[in-house]
Amino acid sequence: MRLSRYFLPVLKETPAEAQIASHRLMLRAGMVRQQSAGIYSWLPLGLKVLRNVERIVHEEQQRAGHIPLLMPTLQSADLWKESGRYDAYGEELLRLTDRHGRDMLYSPTAEELFTDVFRSYVKSYKDLPLTLYQIQWKFRDEIRPRFGVMRGREFLMKDGYTFDLTKEDALHAYNRHLVTYLRTYERMGLQAIPMRADSGPIGGDDTHEFLVLADTGESEVFYDSEITDLSFGDREIDYDSVEQCQAVLEEFTSRYARTDETHDAALFEQVPEARRRVARGIEVGQIFYFGTKYSEAMGATVQGPDGKPVPVHMGSHGIGVSRLVGALIEANHDDRGIIWPEGVTPFHVGIVNLKQGDAEADAACDSLYASFAALGLDPLYDDTSERAGGKFATMDLIGLPWRVTVGPRGLKNGVVEVTSRRTGESEEMTPEMAVEKIAGIYAGR
Amino acid sequence: MRLSRYFLPVLKETPAEAQIASHRLMLRAGMVRQQSAGIYSWLPLGLKVLRNVERIVHEEQQRAGHIPLLMPTLQSADLWKESGRYDAYGEELLRLTDRHGRDMLYSPTAEELFTDVFRSYVKSYKDLPLTLYQIQWKFRDEIRPRFGVMRGREFLMKDGYTFDLTKEDALHAYNRHLVTYLRTYERMGLQAIPMRADSGPIGGDDTHEFLVLADTGESEVFYDSEITDLSFGDREIDYDSVEQCQAVLEEFTSRYARTDETHDAALFEQVPEARRRVARGIEVGQIFYFGTKYSEAMGATVQGPDGKPVPVHMGSHGIGVSRLVGALIEANHDDRGIIWPEGVTPFHVGIVNLKQGDAEADAACDSLYASFAALGLDPLYDDTSERAGGKFATMDLIGLPWRVTVGPRGLKNGVVEVTSRRTGESEEMTPEMAVEKIAGIYAGR
Repeated sequence: MRLSRYFLPVLKETPAEAQIASHRLMLRAGMVRQQSAGIYSWLPLGLKVLRNVERIVHEEQQRAGHIPLLMPTLQSADLWKESGRYDAYGEELLRLTDRHGRDMLYSPTAEELFTDVFRSYVKSYKDLPLTLYQIQWKFRDEIRPRFGVMRGREFLMKDGYTFDLTKEDALHAYNRHLVTYLRTYERMGLQAIPMRADSGPIGGDDTHEFLVLADTGESEVFYDSEITDLSFGDREIDYDSVEQCQAVLEEFTSRYARTDETHDAALFEQVPEARRRVARGIEVGQIFYFGTKYSEAMGATVQGPDGKPVPVHMGSHGIGVSRLVGALIEANHDDRGIIWPEGVTPFHVGIVNLKQGDAEADAACDSLYASFAALGLDPLYDDTSERAGGKFATMDLIGLPWRVTVGPRGLKNGVVEVTSRRTGESEEMTPEMAVEKIAGIYAGR
Repeated sequence: MRLSRYFLPVLKETPAEAQIASHRLMLRAGMVRQQSAGIYSWLPLGLKVLRNVERIVHEEQQRAGHIPLLMPTLQSADLWKESGRYDAYGEELLRLTDRHGRDMLYSPTAEELFTDVFRSYVKSYKDLPLTLYQIQWKFRDEIRPRFGVMRGREFLMKDGYTFDLTKEDALHAYNRHLVTYLRTYERMGLQAIPMRADSGPIGGDDTHEFLVLADTGESEVFYDSEITDLSFGDREIDYDSVEQCQAVLEEFTSRYARTDETHDAALFEQVPEARRRVARGIEVGQIFYFGTKYSEAMGATVQGPDGKPVPVHMGSHGIGVSRLVGALIEANHDDRGIIWPEGVTPFHVGIVNLKQGDAEADAACDSLYASFAALGLDPLYDDTSERAGGKFATMDLIGLPWRVTVGPRGLKNGVVEVTSRRTGESEEMTPEMAVEKIAGIYAGR
């Protein structure tokens, strides 16, 4: 994309209403615009990151055999009356009435809808196990929306639902989700720690939250520092293997790691003092096993092996997709702006032309642009007449991991400059080597 | 995807509530489920087609330099009060109130939001031209939703907005959109004819609707039969060229083609009688130029070349993305089911194993599956124990364009059978040739 033809409304000033770095930077970098309290437009740059996050979530879910579908945002209140949540949910549930006076609501989560789809079509234990999920907009009418997209009212969430014949099968589905979530966050360049959680209004026996450590996190967290040394890495996993998924669960949850909601001071004391950490974290996902709570309330049964009806064991598993964009920035920024991990960056590389209008510089930039595009990379070329300082400031603000700077002086020596946003280190090399180096970094992503 | 691990709830019976073929077939093929009047869940197979349609729309918009962003579904009523549409829109506008008692609405279209984003950031004529668009869920509270996703209440729409300094520039943007729309529909295997339209409540001077001819269309259409001989084909076009876009507009709109709303019997009489056609059509898109209606009402001005503020000339341009899935089926089905065009098919090819459990047949199917996947194709392998007749009926119903049938008898002779869903013709060949043939059909898509 050429910046002169793009829509990137960066702000010079820091918006007064933004209290945390990610909110501030998303506004300044022209990623979002608040339309009303807790409701945002995703401007072009922000939408690109959101779509990258969404894509990674989809890929990791489908790698595990989970099947995407899409529920409507609005739905009849009937199903919620059936489950008992219509009255129980409280004021965060946005209730409305259509022109015929029918009670409707904007889905804040979708246990009821998925259970309804399940019970409508699945009749036999032979069709289990089944995991269905969606990535869809949700609405929760927060009383005090804040922190930008981190706690918005309209937000994008991945919510997955597992249907199994037995508790054991359901716990395998739970473990499988834990594995997919670890992979998902790592691919985005985030370390998210599974912590024992409180089940809250959804109800449930087993539940873990995934937290990204960040000073601005809303939860206080307590953990054994050994846990931050763990990484999933590029290990292969067979998602059908109960043992393999169970082993990952044990590896990642055996050390002490809890939020203030489930914190147990006495247990924490047993962690060697040097490894005890108290910090803050942002919740970016949660997995639940809740047994037959919804299947019994809503009659979601299958015919078991003995011919008798059995209510299915269920779980629900969420990732805050739009919230992750904020969490990624909280974990990856400095005082000049955002520093995108390669896995989610809106453009792979920025090209800065130091002397727009200089025939040689323009030609070198055009050639770099074409070379990146030919390799399937998406460059952002600042082809405006802005001064060099302004171009660098914008590139630093929007946080592309790699920048190639092109100017007449370097070109005289046959070189351009390649700069890492994260380290700030620059290196001179030929344009061909710059393309090769950056393509190599993204190879296989 | 292996069918045994997929969620494809096909129905044996024809649902009584469905009046038209596409609605009937989408229910029977397990593509959608009605959750309440005019509100659908998109089941896995339906979602795949919806995403394919969406992808083609995105690609053709971005090819023309149009820039995607994403607006929230819910918004404050304030902007609509400013434009004057809050009261004017009527009961199709879903109005609601949040927990603080603020008036909100579910966006049925987004002229106000885009105009607001524009006026907030764009200050100079130098930033024009600009085309911003989104593909987002909309809601219109139709009094009598019907025909499945063709006239639903919650629906997915692409809506694009053009901002230009002059009427001439805005008309170029209009023409450019006409070209992108012709390409978009053709890539999906649809012929959509631009017809002079009525501007309706959005208001506007120039507007064309795109109609797909189908007996079940809701509009009566009148046209010169020569128009159906036109096709955009694979011609190259420079979207910056006023002349090239204008020439396409003239080519595709110079012949008589109108809906009943704009029909002019006297003009129609001038078409040679042998070429006069009266038929029915489904509206799948519309382009509008409406001048400064919103920019004046909402203060969307830029500083012109002379330093004075100028209200921008605007247009809005829509494609009914979810509706297109229905229109595609109306135009592509027979009495056995759907016949997907290659451009939008949910799976590229079906593999039918005639004797599941036979070691040789299973191995041949696994090998075909792996070969297709290695070439980037997405096969659906019916690996269930259903009888051959049932497998064929399902494949015909869900409409994959190509089927490879594998059985012990053929394998003895080293062959499998490749069948075209559209023509019904079958051909025997080696598995390797089958892969090559089908990969060739999809090459370059």
